[in-house]
Amino acid sequence: MNNTKKVFIFLADGFEEIEGLTVVDLLRRAGIDITMVSINKDKSVKGSHGISLMADSVFPDTDFSDADMLVLPGGMPGTRYLSEYAPLVSLLRDFYNKEGKIAAICAAPTVLSSLGFLKDKKATCYPSMMQQLDCRETSEESVVTDGNITTSRGLGTALPFALSLIGQLISEDKAREIAVSVVA
Amino acid sequence: MNNTKKVFIFLADGFEEIEGLTVVDLLRRAGIDITMVSINKDKSVKGSHGISLMADSVFPDTDFSDADMLVLPGGMPGTRYLSEYAPLVSLLRDFYNKEGKIAAICAAPTVLSSLGFLKDKKATCYPSMMQQLDCRETSEESVVTDGNITTSRGLGTALPFALSLIGQLISEDKAREIAVSVVA
Repeated sequence: MNNTKKVFIFLADGFEEIEGLTVVDLLRRAGIDITMVSINKDKSVKGSHGISLMADSVFPDTDFSDADMLVLPGGMPGTRYLSEYAPLVSLLRDFYNKEGKIAAICAAPTVLSSLGFLKDKKATCYPSMMQQLDCRETSEESVVTDGNITTSRGLGTALPFALSLIGQLISEDKAREIAVSVVA
Repeated sequence: MNNTKKVFIFLADGFEEIEGLTVVDLLRRAGIDITMVSINKDKSVKGSHGISLMADSVFPDTDFSDADMLVLPGGMPGTRYLSEYAPLVSLLRDFYNKEGKIAAICAAPTVLSSLGFLKDKKATCYPSMMQQLDCRETSEESVVTDGNITTSRGLGTALPFALSLIGQLISEDKAREIAVSVVA
Protein backbone atom coordinates (compact mmCIF):
# COMPACT_ATOMS: atom_id res chain seq x y z
CA MET A 1 0.00 0.00 0.00
CA ASN A 2 1.29 3.40 -0.99
CA ASN A 3 0.46 6.20 1.42
CA THR A 4 2.39 8.87 -0.46
CA LYS A 5 0.14 11.87 -1.02
CA LYS A 6 -0.28 13.05 -4.60
CA VAL A 7 -0.64 16.70 -5.46
CA PHE A 8 -0.86 18.48 -8.81
CA ILE A 9 0.01 22.14 -9.37
CA PHE A 10 -0.96 23.84 -12.62
CA LEU A 11 1.41 26.16 -14.47
CA ALA A 12 0.55 28.54 -17.30
CA ASP A 13 2.75 31.20 -18.89
CA GLY A 14 2.74 34.19 -16.56
CA PHE A 15 2.37 32.19 -13.34
CA GLU A 16 3.98 33.70 -10.24
CA GLU A 17 7.17 31.70 -9.87
CA ILE A 18 7.65 31.88 -6.10
CA GLU A 19 3.99 31.21 -5.32
CA GLY A 20 4.10 28.06 -7.42
CA LEU A 21 7.58 26.80 -6.67
CA THR A 22 7.49 27.34 -2.90
CA VAL A 23 4.66 24.80 -2.80
CA VAL A 24 6.62 22.37 -5.01
CA ASP A 25 9.82 22.76 -2.98
CA LEU A 26 8.28 22.44 0.48
CA LEU A 27 5.92 19.58 -0.37
CA ARG A 28 8.83 17.64 -1.87
CA ARG A 29 10.83 18.24 1.31
CA ALA A 30 7.86 16.69 3.16
CA GLY A 31 7.89 13.58 0.94
CA ILE A 32 4.70 14.50 -0.93
CA ASP A 33 4.56 13.55 -4.62
CA ILE A 34 3.81 16.88 -6.30
CA THR A 35 3.64 17.13 -10.09
CA MET A 36 4.03 20.42 -11.96
CA VAL A 37 1.51 20.23 -14.81
CA SER A 38 1.93 22.57 -17.77
CA ILE A 39 -1.24 23.71 -19.54
CA ASN A 40 0.94 24.70 -22.51
CA LYS A 41 1.46 22.35 -25.46
CA ASP A 42 4.82 21.36 -24.03
CA LYS A 43 6.45 21.23 -20.60
CA SER A 44 8.18 24.57 -20.96
CA VAL A 45 6.51 27.37 -18.99
CA LYS A 46 7.63 30.97 -18.51
CA GLY A 47 6.71 32.73 -15.26
CA SER A 48 5.58 36.32 -14.77
CA HIS A 49 9.13 37.39 -13.84
CA GLY A 50 10.86 35.89 -16.85
CA ILE A 51 11.92 32.57 -15.32
CA SER A 52 11.49 29.67 -17.75
CA LEU A 53 11.22 26.18 -16.32
CA MET A 54 10.29 22.67 -17.30
CA ALA A 55 7.10 21.27 -15.79
CA ASP A 56 6.95 17.53 -15.04
CA SER A 57 4.09 16.79 -17.45
CA VAL A 58 1.59 18.34 -19.82
CA PHE A 59 -2.09 18.34 -18.87
CA PRO A 60 -3.46 15.91 -21.51
CA ASP A 61 -0.85 13.26 -20.61
CA THR A 62 -1.47 13.43 -16.86
CA ASP A 63 -3.52 10.94 -14.84
CA PHE A 64 -5.31 12.79 -12.04
CA SER A 65 -7.30 9.78 -10.77
CA ASP A 66 -5.33 9.43 -7.52
CA ALA A 67 -5.00 13.14 -6.69
CA ASP A 68 -5.16 14.18 -3.04
CA MET A 69 -5.02 17.91 -3.78
CA LEU A 70 -5.00 20.39 -6.68
CA VAL A 71 -3.13 23.70 -6.39
CA LEU A 72 -3.34 26.95 -8.39
CA PRO A 73 -0.55 29.54 -8.14
CA GLY A 74 -1.30 33.20 -8.86
CA GLY A 75 0.41 35.66 -11.17
CA MET A 76 -0.83 37.40 -14.27
CA PRO A 77 -1.64 36.53 -17.00
CA GLY A 78 -1.08 32.98 -15.69
CA THR A 79 -4.20 32.99 -13.52
CA ARG A 80 -6.36 34.12 -16.45
CA TYR A 81 -4.91 31.37 -18.66
CA LEU A 82 -5.73 28.78 -15.99
CA SER A 83 -9.32 30.06 -15.78
CA GLU A 84 -9.69 29.85 -19.57
CA TYR A 85 -8.32 26.31 -19.94
CA ALA A 86 -11.48 24.18 -20.19
CA PRO A 87 -9.92 20.79 -19.30
CA LEU A 88 -8.61 22.25 -16.02
CA VAL A 89 -11.94 23.91 -15.23
CA SER A 90 -13.66 20.58 -15.81
CA LEU A 91 -11.15 18.77 -13.56
CA LEU A 92 -11.61 21.37 -10.81
CA ARG A 93 -15.43 20.99 -10.94
CA ASP A 94 -15.26 17.18 -10.76
CA PHE A 95 -12.69 17.25 -7.97
CA TYR A 96 -14.67 19.85 -5.99
CA ASN A 97 -17.85 17.80 -6.34
CA LYS A 98 -16.01 14.79 -4.86
CA GLU A 99 -14.95 17.06 -1.97
CA GLY A 100 -11.31 16.97 -3.04
CA LYS A 101 -8.89 19.45 -1.49
CA ILE A 102 -8.18 22.52 -3.65
CA ALA A 103 -5.77 25.34 -2.82
CA ALA A 104 -5.19 28.70 -4.54
CA ILE A 105 -3.03 31.74 -3.80
CA CYS A 106 -2.89 35.43 -4.77
CA ALA A 107 -5.06 36.01 -7.88
CA ALA A 108 -6.03 32.33 -8.20
CA PRO A 109 -8.80 32.25 -5.54
CA THR A 110 -10.81 34.33 -8.08
CA VAL A 111 -10.84 31.22 -10.30
CA LEU A 112 -12.42 29.18 -7.50
CA SER A 113 -14.82 32.05 -6.81
CA SER A 114 -15.98 32.22 -10.43
CA LEU A 115 -16.75 28.48 -10.27
CA GLY A 116 -18.93 29.06 -7.20
CA PHE A 117 -16.69 27.05 -4.85
CA LEU A 118 -16.41 29.85 -2.28
CA LYS A 119 -20.09 30.81 -1.95
CA ASP A 120 -20.50 29.26 1.51
CA LYS A 121 -16.88 29.72 2.58
CA LYS A 122 -14.49 32.09 4.26
CA ALA A 123 -11.62 32.93 1.90
CA THR A 124 -8.79 35.32 1.12
CA CYS A 125 -6.84 36.41 -1.96
CA TYR A 126 -4.56 39.19 -3.22
CA PRO A 127 -5.68 42.38 -1.43
CA SER A 128 -6.69 44.35 -4.54
CA MET A 129 -8.88 41.44 -5.72
CA MET A 130 -10.75 40.78 -2.49
CA GLN A 131 -13.86 42.58 -3.74
CA GLN A 132 -14.09 40.15 -6.66
CA LEU A 133 -14.50 37.18 -4.31
CA ASP A 134 -18.00 35.79 -4.16
CA CYS A 135 -17.69 34.16 -0.74
CA ARG A 136 -19.44 34.00 2.62
CA GLU A 137 -16.72 35.97 4.37
CA THR A 138 -13.42 37.54 3.31
CA SER A 139 -10.40 37.38 5.58
CA GLU A 140 -7.06 39.16 5.80
CA GLU A 141 -5.36 36.14 7.36
CA SER A 142 -2.31 34.87 5.40
CA VAL A 143 -3.90 31.46 4.85
CA VAL A 144 -7.55 30.45 5.20
CA THR A 145 -8.80 26.86 5.13
CA ASP A 146 -12.56 26.35 5.09
CA GLY A 147 -13.67 22.80 4.42
CA ASN A 148 -11.80 21.47 1.39
CA ILE A 149 -10.67 24.88 0.13
CA THR A 150 -7.47 26.72 1.13
CA THR A 151 -6.76 30.27 -0.05
CA SER A 152 -3.84 32.60 0.51
CA ARG A 153 -2.76 36.17 -0.35
CA GLY A 154 0.45 36.48 -2.36
CA LEU A 155 4.15 35.77 -2.75
CA GLY A 156 4.74 36.94 0.81
CA THR A 157 2.39 34.28 2.17
CA ALA A 158 3.60 31.41 -0.05
CA LEU A 159 5.63 29.86 2.79
CA PRO A 160 2.78 29.61 5.36
CA PHE A 161 0.49 28.54 2.49
CA ALA A 162 2.80 25.61 1.62
CA LEU A 163 3.23 24.70 5.30
CA SER A 164 -0.56 24.68 5.72
CA LEU A 165 -0.89 22.24 2.82
CA ILE A 166 1.71 19.93 4.42
CA GLY A 167 -0.24 20.13 7.68
CA GLN A 168 -3.43 19.09 5.91
CA LEU A 169 -1.87 16.35 3.80
CA ILE A 170 0.43 14.79 6.42
CA SER A 171 0.39 16.36 9.89
CA GLU A 172 1.04 19.55 11.81
CA ASP A 173 4.15 17.89 13.22
CA LYS A 174 5.53 17.39 9.72
CA ALA A 175 4.72 21.01 8.84
CA ARG A 176 6.60 22.19 11.94
CA GLU A 177 9.55 19.92 11.11
CA ILE A 178 9.78 21.40 7.60
CA ALA A 179 9.39 24.95 8.94
CA VAL A 180 12.35 24.42 11.28
CA SER A 181 14.46 22.85 8.50
CA VAL A 182 14.00 25.90 6.24
CA VAL A 183 14.53 28.41 9.09
CA ALA A 184 10.95 29.69 8.86
CA MET B 1 23.19 57.57 -18.37
CA ASN B 2 21.82 54.24 -17.25
CA ASN B 3 21.17 53.99 -13.53
CA THR B 4 19.72 50.49 -13.67
CA LYS B 5 21.50 48.32 -11.12
CA LYS B 6 23.08 45.11 -12.43
CA VAL B 7 23.13 41.96 -10.34
CA PHE B 8 24.34 38.45 -11.15
CA ILE B 9 23.17 35.31 -9.36
CA PHE B 10 25.04 32.03 -9.88
CA LEU B 11 23.22 28.74 -10.39
CA ALA B 12 24.71 25.25 -10.22
CA ASP B 13 22.89 21.92 -10.27
CA GLY B 14 21.53 21.34 -6.77
CA PHE B 15 20.94 25.02 -5.97
CA GLU B 16 18.04 25.78 -3.62
CA GLU B 17 15.30 26.96 -5.97
CA ILE B 18 13.39 29.30 -3.67
CA GLU B 19 16.53 30.89 -2.22
CA GLY B 20 17.75 31.71 -5.72
CA LEU B 21 14.49 32.57 -7.45
CA THR B 22 13.03 34.75 -4.68
CA VAL B 23 15.98 37.09 -5.24
CA VAL B 24 15.44 37.03 -9.02
CA ASP B 25 11.69 37.62 -8.72
CA LEU B 26 11.81 40.44 -6.17
CA LEU B 27 14.75 42.29 -7.73
CA ARG B 28 12.99 42.20 -11.11
CA ARG B 29 9.85 43.61 -9.47
CA ALA B 30 12.08 46.44 -8.22
CA GLY B 31 13.43 47.17 -11.72
CA ILE B 32 16.88 45.75 -11.05
CA ASP B 33 18.60 43.97 -13.96
CA ILE B 34 19.39 40.56 -12.46
CA THR B 35 20.95 37.84 -14.62
CA MET B 36 20.80 34.14 -13.71
CA VAL B 37 24.22 32.76 -14.65
CA SER B 38 24.61 29.00 -15.09
CA ILE B 39 27.97 27.50 -14.21
CA ASN B 40 26.97 24.43 -16.25
CA LYS B 41 28.03 24.04 -19.88
CA ASP B 42 24.56 25.17 -20.97
CA LYS B 43 21.80 27.33 -19.51
CA SER B 44 19.82 24.41 -18.13
CA VAL B 45 20.14 24.00 -14.37
CA LYS B 46 18.35 21.57 -12.05
CA GLY B 47 17.64 22.64 -8.48
CA SER B 48 17.91 20.58 -5.30
CA HIS B 49 14.16 19.86 -5.36
CA GLY B 50 13.99 18.64 -8.93
CA ILE B 51 12.97 21.89 -10.62
CA SER B 52 14.76 22.40 -13.96
CA LEU B 53 15.01 25.90 -15.31
CA MET B 54 16.80 27.92 -17.94
CA ALA B 55 19.35 30.45 -16.71
CA ASP B 56 19.79 33.66 -18.71
CA SER B 57 23.42 33.03 -19.61
CA VAL B 58 26.38 30.71 -19.10
CA PHE B 59 29.35 31.95 -17.10
CA PRO B 60 32.01 32.11 -19.86
CA ASP B 61 29.71 34.22 -22.09
CA THR B 62 28.81 36.73 -19.38
CA ASP B 63 30.28 40.21 -19.01
CA PHE B 64 30.54 41.06 -15.33
CA SER B 65 32.34 44.39 -15.79
CA ASP B 66 29.37 46.54 -14.76
CA ALA B 67 28.15 44.38 -11.86
CA ASP B 68 26.72 46.13 -8.80
CA MET B 69 26.28 42.93 -6.79
CA LEU B 70 26.98 39.19 -6.95
CA VAL B 71 24.62 36.71 -5.23
CA LEU B 72 25.08 33.06 -4.22
CA PRO B 73 22.02 30.91 -3.39
CA GLY B 74 22.39 27.93 -1.07
CA GLY B 75 21.34 24.32 -1.52
CA MET B 76 23.39 21.17 -1.79
CA PRO B 77 25.31 20.06 -3.78
CA GLY B 78 24.87 23.42 -5.57
CA THR B 79 26.86 25.38 -3.03
CA ARG B 80 29.76 22.94 -3.25
CA TYR B 81 29.74 23.18 -7.05
CA LEU B 82 29.87 26.98 -6.82
CA SER B 83 32.84 26.78 -4.43
CA GLU B 84 34.68 24.41 -6.81
CA TYR B 85 34.15 26.50 -9.96
CA ALA B 86 37.43 28.35 -10.35
CA PRO B 87 36.22 31.15 -12.69
CA LEU B 88 33.54 32.10 -10.13
CA VAL B 89 36.01 31.98 -7.24
CA SER B 90 38.33 34.26 -9.20
CA LEU B 91 35.47 36.68 -9.98
CA LEU B 92 34.41 36.74 -6.32
CA ARG B 93 37.99 37.53 -5.19
CA ASP B 94 38.38 40.35 -7.71
CA PHE B 95 34.97 41.79 -6.90
CA TYR B 96 35.59 41.59 -3.14
CA ASN B 97 38.95 43.31 -3.54
CA LYS B 98 37.18 46.18 -5.35
CA GLU B 99 34.74 46.35 -2.40
CA GLY B 100 31.86 45.12 -4.55
CA LYS B 101 28.67 44.01 -2.83
CA ILE B 102 28.37 40.22 -2.37
CA ALA B 103 25.39 38.37 -0.87
CA ALA B 104 24.98 34.70 0.10
CA ILE B 105 22.25 32.67 1.79
CA CYS B 106 21.91 29.33 3.63
CA ALA B 107 24.99 27.17 2.89
CA ALA B 108 26.57 29.74 0.58
CA PRO B 109 28.08 32.04 3.26
CA THR B 110 30.54 29.16 3.85
CA VAL B 111 31.93 29.90 0.37
CA LEU B 112 32.61 33.51 1.35
CA SER B 113 34.08 32.31 4.65
CA SER B 114 36.50 29.92 2.94
CA LEU B 115 37.72 32.83 0.80
CA GLY B 116 38.44 34.83 3.97
CA PHE B 117 35.81 37.50 3.22
CA LEU B 118 34.12 37.19 6.62
CA LYS B 119 37.20 37.32 8.89
CA ASP B 120 36.50 40.84 10.17
CA LYS B 121 32.73 40.66 9.76
CA LYS B 122 29.52 39.71 11.50
CA ALA B 123 27.68 37.06 9.48
CA THR B 124 25.02 34.35 9.52
CA CYS B 125 24.25 31.17 7.58
CA TYR B 126 22.21 27.95 7.79
CA PRO B 127 22.03 27.06 11.51
CA SER B 128 23.85 23.71 11.28
CA MET B 129 26.76 25.35 9.41
CA MET B 130 27.32 28.30 11.72
CA GLN B 131 30.34 26.66 13.34
CA GLN B 132 32.07 26.47 9.95
CA LEU B 133 32.01 30.26 9.56
CA ASP B 134 35.36 31.91 10.07
CA CYS B 135 34.02 35.33 10.99
CA ARG B 136 34.35 38.02 13.67
CA GLU B 137 30.89 37.35 15.05
CA THR B 138 28.04 34.98 14.17
CA SER B 139 24.43 36.16 14.34
CA GLU B 140 21.02 34.48 14.38
CA GLU B 141 19.38 37.44 12.66
CA SER B 142 17.56 36.54 9.41
CA VAL B 143 19.75 38.88 7.37
CA VAL B 144 23.10 40.42 8.31
CA THR B 145 24.83 43.14 6.31
CA ASP B 146 28.36 44.07 7.38
CA GLY B 147 30.20 46.36 5.01
CA ASN B 148 29.89 44.98 1.48
CA ILE B 149 28.79 41.48 2.55
CA THR B 150 25.20 40.33 3.20
CA THR B 151 24.44 36.87 4.59
CA SER B 152 21.19 35.09 5.39
CA ARG B 153 19.97 31.78 6.85
CA GLY B 154 17.78 29.69 4.55
CA LEU B 155 14.67 29.34 2.40
CA GLY B 156 12.57 30.81 5.21
CA THR B 157 14.62 34.03 5.17
CA ALA B 158 14.82 34.40 1.36
CA LEU B 159 12.14 37.10 1.31
CA PRO B 160 13.78 39.47 3.86
CA PHE B 161 17.14 38.67 2.20
CA ALA B 162 15.85 39.81 -1.21
CA LEU B 163 14.19 42.89 0.31
CA SER B 164 17.46 43.79 2.02
CA LEU B 165 19.28 43.64 -1.32
CA ILE B 166 16.67 45.96 -2.88
CA GLY B 167 17.16 48.34 0.05
CA GLN B 168 20.91 48.39 -0.53
CA LEU B 169 20.75 48.69 -4.32
CA ILE B 170 17.90 51.21 -4.61
CA SER B 171 16.34 52.45 -1.36
CA GLU B 172 14.50 51.36 1.76
CA ASP B 173 11.40 52.99 0.32
CA LYS B 174 11.57 50.76 -2.75
CA ALA B 175 12.06 47.69 -0.53
CA ARG B 176 8.97 48.66 1.48
CA GLU B 177 6.97 49.25 -1.70
CA ILE B 178 7.89 45.77 -3.00
CA ALA B 179 7.14 44.19 0.40
CA VAL B 180 3.63 45.68 0.36
CA SER B 181 3.04 44.59 -3.24
CA VAL B 182 3.84 40.95 -2.42
CA VAL B 183 1.86 40.98 0.86
CA ALA B 184 5.00 40.48 2.96
